[in-house]
Amino acid sequence: MIVLYELTGADDARRFSPAVWRVRMALRHKGLAFEGRPWRFTEKEAIAPSGGGTVPVIVDRGRWVRESFAIAEYLEDAYPDRPSLFGSGEGRALGRFMLAWVDRTLAFPVSRLILTDIFSHLAEGDRDYFRQSREKRFGRRLEEVCPDPEAELASIRLLLEPVRRLAAVQDFMGGGMPGFADYALYGTFMWARMVSTRLALAEDDPLRAWLGRVDRLFDREGPRALEAAGMRA
Amino acid sequence: MIVLYELTGADDARRFSPAVWRVRMALRHKGLAFEGRPWRFTEKEAIAPSGGGTVPVIVDRGRWVRESFAIAEYLEDAYPDRPSLFGSGEGRALGRFMLAWVDRTLAFPVSRLILTDIFSHLAEGDRDYFRQSREKRFGRRLEEVCPDPEAELASIRLLLEPVRRLAAVQDFMGGGMPGFADYALYGTFMWARMVSTRLALAEDDPLRAWLGRVDRLFDREGPRALEAAGMRA
Repeated sequence: MIVLYELTGADDARRFSPAVWRVRMALRHKGLAFEGRPWRFTEKEAIAPSGGGTVPVIVDRGRWVRESFAIAEYLEDAYPDRPSLFGSGEGRALGRFMLAWVDRTLAFPVSRLILTDIFSHLAEGDRDYFRQSREKRFGRRLEEVCPDPEAELASIRLLLEPVRRLAAVQDFMGGGMPGFADYALYGTFMWARMVSTRLALAEDDPLRAWLGRVDRLFDREGPRALEAAGMRA
Repeated sequence: MIVLYELTGADDARRFSPAVWRVRMALRHKGLAFEGRPWRFTEKEAIAPSGGGTVPVIVDRGRWVRESFAIAEYLEDAYPDRPSLFGSGEGRALGRFMLAWVDRTLAFPVSRLILTDIFSHLAEGDRDYFRQSREKRFGRRLEEVCPDPEAELASIRLLLEPVRRLAAVQDFMGGGMPGFADYALYGTFMWARMVSTRLALAEDDPLRAWLGRVDRLFDREGPRALEAAGMRA
């Protein structure tokens, strides 16, 4: 069975990595059996054979693959008879572009918004690592990274406009069927909701309906995980 | 024959609207005969039947259609036997997302970089309109909008990272074949090159090779237009 290393907080059920969520949803989309293995920031040795020090990492029949897009491409090529994650060549490009956009546009602002919430849920052994690496990245104390959460949220809502335009005209990012482009974005919402209630969408935001549609996939994979960690969908 | 209203400068050959270039390339992609009709900012009445006051506007068999993505969808649906602009449902989503990204991410920075170059090429009758509307938009005099062009260019090169990632792994934005997602981005480069030499890509930027590939389409549609306006490709 495929093994998926998943970043967790103090509670094994608090799987909060956005990139791991892309892969978890991709594995469910493909209908592949897998075992999620809890992993924490400081357990670098456990995933060393992958060639890197961050998750997601999968091990499939002895083969290690890391990074969410590389894993999606691996799964697509290794299991061509399963439902496609991309749908077409253009769908693969859409997935790659969506992921690049999420990484460059959303990752930092959302990170700032939920940084102290993440910290409060970490395992004891991960706290020093997290505080030091993030305070270096943001150039200030964790508690000072987001002095105005309301302004940060307003800014994030504006940044979401390109995906909002897609959600306004179709059910999923690529059209009528879900695929990797959805999971690339959905990971960001799972990340936030696993530790925080701050990333809220406006009532009339078309992205709310999209989020609900992805929430209902795979027997409510996302909401069930949120509930297991004591969070609301 | 389809009529395409095209924004021009003092010289009819200086067709510099990014949105019109998306449509010109789309018409060529479809292999449709069309007449480009020079149009200037202040000639609102000429295109009033379109329902708006900006180009691109096409008239096809008495039907007026405006805005580049709406025109692309119109052409795709009205001429289904011609080469597809999207390739697939996901390709249509990619085109829509690319356009939203270009509009939200690139339009303002590139506009700042080339603003005075645009102004210098305008028809006399368009100058007051342009100065007033753009000085209102940017909140300062045209000549003060871009005090540091080198820093602006460096920032634009960073902003291009998501499309650079696509160009690094495939010939065109959607994969192996050109389509509307390419033209959505290409319009920005034609806009800049029609009036300015400032939007330069680094020698080793994968986007340079992509730009060259789109330049070579349709008997060098873009470079021929640049040469006709006295600019270099």
